[in-house]
Amino acid sequence: MNINDWINDDLPKIVDAIESSIFDEEKVIDERSLNLAGRNEICAVLDDVLAALFPNAFNRERVSKAEMNFFLGDILRHIAFRLRRLTRDTLEFHCQTQRCEECDCDRHADEIVRNFLSELPEIRKTLLSDIRAALAGDPAAGSHEEILLSYPYVEAVATHRVAHQLWKQKLPIVPRIMSERAHSNTGIDIHPGATIGAGFFIDHGTGVVIGETVTIGSNVKIYQGVTLGALSPFDRQGRPTVGQKRHPDIEDDVIIYANATILGGDTVIGKGSIIGGNTWITSSVAPGSVVYRGSEQKAMNRD
Amino acid sequence: MNINDWINDDLPKIVDAIESSIFDEEKVIDERSLNLAGRNEICAVLDDVLAALFPNAFNRERVSKAEMNFFLGDILRHIAFRLRRLTRDTLEFHCQTQRCEECDCDRHADEIVRNFLSELPEIRKTLLSDIRAALAGDPAAGSHEEILLSYPYVEAVATHRVAHQLWKQKLPIVPRIMSERAHSNTGIDIHPGATIGAGFFIDHGTGVVIGETVTIGSNVKIYQGVTLGALSPFDRQGRPTVGQKRHPDIEDDVIIYANATILGGDTVIGKGSIIGGNTWITSSVAPGSVVYRGSEQKAMNRD
Amino acid sequence: MNINDWINDDLPKIVDAIESSIFDEEKVIDERSLNLAGRNEICAVLDDVLAALFPNAFNRERVSKAEMNFFLGDILRHIAFRLRRLTRDTLEFHCQTQRCEECDCDRHADEIVRNFLSELPEIRKTLLSDIRAALAGDPAAGSHEEILLSYPYVEAVATHRVAHQLWKQKLPIVPRIMSERAHSNTGIDIHPGATIGAGFFIDHGTGVVIGETVTIGSNVKIYQGVTLGALSPFDRQGRPTVGQKRHPDIEDDVIIYANATILGGDTVIGKGSIIGGNTWITSSVAPGSVVYRGSEQKAMNRD
Repeated sequence: MNINDWINDDLPKIVDAIESSIFDEEKVIDERSLNLAGRNEICAVLDDVLAALFPNAFNRERVSKAEMNFFLGDILRHIAFRLRRLTRDTLEFHCQTQRCEECDCDRHADEIVRNFLSELPEIRKTLLSDIRAALAGDPAAGSHEEILLSYPYVEAVATHRVAHQLWKQKLPIVPRIMSERAHSNTGIDIHPGATIGAGFFIDHGTGVVIGETVTIGSNVKIYQGVTLGALSPFDRQGRPTVGQKRHPDIEDDVIIYANATILGGDTVIGKGSIIGGNTWITSSVAPGSVVYRGSEQKAMNRD
Repeated sequence: MNINDWINDDLPKIVDAIESSIFDEEKVIDERSLNLAGRNEICAVLDDVLAALFPNAFNRERVSKAEMNFFLGDILRHIAFRLRRLTRDTLEFHCQTQRCEECDCDRHADEIVRNFLSELPEIRKTLLSDIRAALAGDPAAGSHEEILLSYPYVEAVATHRVAHQLWKQKLPIVPRIMSERAHSNTGIDIHPGATIGAGFFIDHGTGVVIGETVTIGSNVKIYQGVTLGALSPFDRQGRPTVGQKRHPDIEDDVIIYANATILGGDTVIGKGSIIGGNTWITSSVAPGSVVYRGSEQKAMNRD
Repeated sequence: MNINDWINDDLPKIVDAIESSIFDEEKVIDERSLNLAGRNEICAVLDDVLAALFPNAFNRERVSKAEMNFFLGDILRHIAFRLRRLTRDTLEFHCQTQRCEECDCDRHADEIVRNFLSELPEIRKTLLSDIRAALAGDPAAGSHEEILLSYPYVEAVATHRVAHQLWKQKLPIVPRIMSERAHSNTGIDIHPGATIGAGFFIDHGTGVVIGETVTIGSNVKIYQGVTLGALSPFDRQGRPTVGQKRHPDIEDDVIIYANATILGGDTVIGKGSIIGGNTWITSSVAPGSVVYRGSEQKAMNRD
């Protein structure tokens, strides 16, 4: 049978089979949810936020000193309206699915957008500390311009600080889409729930995983392939450990070299410690520790 | 010499040198082969297949219940024609290079496309089991919508199930281009030849490598950086092990934590085993094994 | 307060705060620097260079034998003009920031572009040796076409050989933007300063890091997750080791399996050695060594 006859005779059966699966099997997604267009719009708003934070790096047009105030006013207003619509749609979709009766999604969306935009000057300040940390920490770094335009971690950490602000306000899904865009572009996977202090630097970055309940202090430096993860996604009764503290805490001034793995919600890497490459750490180490591959057991304070 | 004079005087010599290299040295590619336009077309068809499988996640337009049948019929017909042209061109190119005399590429292309489209309802069913596995397996997962739109593994596993169907029908190159698109976007590298059961979940995913002759059972969960690979690409006589079984088998209900490496065509990870992070396994482990970093030697059944 | 009132009343304060941060805090970037448009233009020129090197793989149009000379002349002329403008702008920006008085950026830009284009036939020849190495080294590789169009390492190594030529001429930032584009697309992070011999092959590739002062001989093969890095970014006095030799040398005919880590500027991996997966090497190993996980200490020639 040639393809044209087959399309007329047999394709309708395949169409019906997929349609049945969509409507009769479990509902995984419906027409009110976000789709690719929504995901693209979230990424476009994120791009505008980055352009507002560093106009002459993440914008496509040069902005002179005289034009700067107008440029910022214009792009932030544009961000406000688009983020508000995305936020309200997202809140309403997730609200309705939980059959909430007394919601006020419209007012709530206004509040999230206002809080978010009000936080941008502080986010910029923190990102400046991150860029300083990169310049101080990498002998191969030539200039601020080189860091902003060619270091993948800049996109990862800038996206994280933006997404984390929305995550703290409990906006569903939008922060995760932002962080996964950065993950796809950079290989650096930071859950938007992670709390990360100023002066943070990730060199190379591919394969880094930073989990939802991680906390990281100030002036921490991390290399490629480092995992800050959970010991297990299930507790001793086999239930998912949703909402529990399950990832480590990294105190100030810690350096973690490539492919080190640090796991567990009770694990604290003490201030100023140096964690060598390819180490495997599942309980706390004291402040000022130096842990090399092979010396982990000695370094960990087992209870 | 300024650049304009140089372009007139010297650039033609460079053009000639490159042209000679293209035609006189070994022929690596010719005008009948796929080029970037062909690669982009393969990715565009793949995007349409994903949109047909999950219309309100991977489509750009919302599709209501009333429009669904029409939408699916339209997009599947469009996929059929484009995939058929790509398939026929690919078969003809590879057929001619092998100086086949009795081929029937046109009929063969029809057959591949028919078989592929007929398999889509089954692929959708399996992908639903994968999404259920993600929701059950990751404490940070909030909803089906979040998984579909923000988990990189969804693109990786959906692309794999589509590409594997074409690979089973021995269509050259097209499945590899599909899987490498997913690899580029997600950091998850699954060879289209790998056989993967239902309820499969990869968390985080960056750096995962799953080789051509791997088999994976049902309800298997894998974390970032896991390699299921070959012990060596060469046999004891130094010949490439083309077409041989050279990658491991993972039985049902196995969990493999981050950065574990499991190698070799005789290696079987027995049903229900838990393989800890950063382990290194080069021969079989019994069903129900729990292997931690440092306990590998004890766990492996060395013959 | 609804969002429209808030935009009128409060947004201007946020605009002013960001503006102050841009002009009053440290200057990280200014309007003369590269921005996203410049970064995109660098990537577009790189795409044209790849199309000139392998017209029927990395071009969007098919080019017949009769058209080839015209096609190459046209695209190389186009590359020459665009690269010259990018190069001159970059030289001038970096020149002014160093308050150079006697520069001749315009002439210097001509020279860089001429040298670069003159090197393209040699770069093509070396890339052909890399493609041969892939075909010989990977049992899963089916054809030159499959390697060119679906192996991520082709983009990584072709980009590297192009970027390295510009890096050798001390063009700031442009080579790094090129190499980071390849890093984002492939997960393979090769600093443009690294020196890499002919017949180089990287399989899978995600997570590979090759540092600035690495040298690699001929016919070397590397797998995913391999780090060729520095022992520390600081010397014994805590100063960044800028410009120093700090990454290893890999001699001819070496194979380095997945996730091996080789560190340090004094570390030499001797000719013909085989370095097993997940090994950790911080000093030299003799030619012909075979190092497995666990046998590193024995293999390293500690001074």
